[in-house]
Amino acid sequence: MTNKPLILVTNDDGIHAKGMACLVEAVSEFGKIVVVSANKSFSGMSHAITVKNPLYIKDMGEKDGVSYYVTNGTPVDCVKLSLHTILHRHPDYIVSGINHGSNSSTSVHYSGTIGAAREGCMNGVPSIGFSLLSYQSDADFSESMKVVKSVFRSVLEEGLAKDTYLNVNIPDTDNVKGIKMCRQGKGKWVEEFLERTDPRGRNYYWLTGHFENLEPEATDTDEYYLENYFATVVPCAIDATDAASLKENKNYEL
Amino acid sequence: MTNKPLILVTNDDGIHAKGMACLVEAVSEFGKIVVVSANKSFSGMSHAITVKNPLYIKDMGEKDGVSYYVTNGTPVDCVKLSLHTILHRHPDYIVSGINHGSNSSTSVHYSGTIGAAREGCMNGVPSIGFSLLSYQSDADFSESMKVVKSVFRSVLEEGLAKDTYLNVNIPDTDNVKGIKMCRQGKGKWVEEFLERTDPRGRNYYWLTGHFENLEPEATDTDEYYLENYFATVVPCAIDATDAASLKENKNYEL
Repeated sequence: MTNKPLILVTNDDGIHAKGMACLVEAVSEFGKIVVVSANKSFSGMSHAITVKNPLYIKDMGEKDGVSYYVTNGTPVDCVKLSLHTILHRHPDYIVSGINHGSNSSTSVHYSGTIGAAREGCMNGVPSIGFSLLSYQSDADFSESMKVVKSVFRSVLEEGLAKDTYLNVNIPDTDNVKGIKMCRQGKGKWVEEFLERTDPRGRNYYWLTGHFENLEPEATDTDEYYLENYFATVVPCAIDATDAASLKENKNYEL
Repeated sequence: MTNKPLILVTNDDGIHAKGMACLVEAVSEFGKIVVVSANKSFSGMSHAITVKNPLYIKDMGEKDGVSYYVTNGTPVDCVKLSLHTILHRHPDYIVSGINHGSNSSTSVHYSGTIGAAREGCMNGVPSIGFSLLSYQSDADFSESMKVVKSVFRSVLEEGLAKDTYLNVNIPDTDNVKGIKMCRQGKGKWVEEFLERTDPRGRNYYWLTGHFENLEPEATDTDEYYLENYFATVVPCAIDATDAASLKENKNYEL
């Protein structure tokens, strides 16, 4: 059994999240699983790392053949600690999620789930982030697990292009119509800050908002397919360079 | 004077950082400046947002015609608070930095400085992140200020493509040779965790590491130009889709 792939599982909702338990269950048939996650939720943590505080690792032991470790770090910290301290080698695959909530369109930039997948990719490990379009802690992940198995099997068989990771989103329905590879849609969060006053008379603000699809007519985006009950796979690049702008090759006088 | 552009200045090193004072000085000739920054350093905060804690804003008053606000939020929070609560309108430009330390190559993904610029861009505001390749708190920013003026003037005159922001890095030299628009180089952080033991006998870990250029032969990357004493301008895209991988259009069986 030692030639089974080593699969690192992490997330941004913390070690107790139902979504991660379902992800572990979905990929367990494909290899040896090690789970490294945080002791709390790190939603909205993006690609953040902890540079000013020390990180702790707690070995939670093994259950049903799966090894569990809990840390006080962000999702990206969990990946770094796994590669360099916990596993002492690079895993063969990294899967992150299943996130409780969408990471489609520009939400990819805020997501700790995707941060972990991006970090895996930056270290040369084929990596995938999975998200379900439901924020419920007891969401039904049964359709999601089918999507995870299908996408993971494809990566297992065909690999992933270097410097590319996958952002997979799954509609909240009990009948996913299929899985589409597509581009990231244009969209943004329209924010509103709720203003409150604390007992000392100071105002404070809670971030709230809703997502707005800026390409409602497009029929080739993740937003379009998700609205039509398809799961989406957006291949994402580590290289952030905007190729079109680069061609302009502007001159700057110093 | 009311038709002067409104320029929001932020950073990830906190309200007292020398780099931000130099950025304010460099752009002050171009418009009305409002500074919104954090009460502490948020290095390595990437595009993180604060979803579980309330945010506070403190009006620090005006000095030399510049308005200052301090918050307890991340750089991206600072931009969101500025757009929706402090300014009550979108600024004409957002500049972030000058960061104490490089944000070239893949460091762009960890950077709070760039997170703020990306957030500005996502809200339709032409946005630029500036970084100096020195981690010294008393670094010499005099060459950096020339670079800031040149790049900002170009954006003022020609604008920026929609959904594109600029990642500007400046070599730590007293003789910058010029400014080059170029692509993001391939590279990664090679990590090492320093292990220590706390008074209760528990091990803890400090993240350390050094950056490795994975394309040492390339002569068209930010890393190449920075090593040769040029400042670099990488136009970056909000769209993370990897166009080459998308063309493969894989089929997934559900």
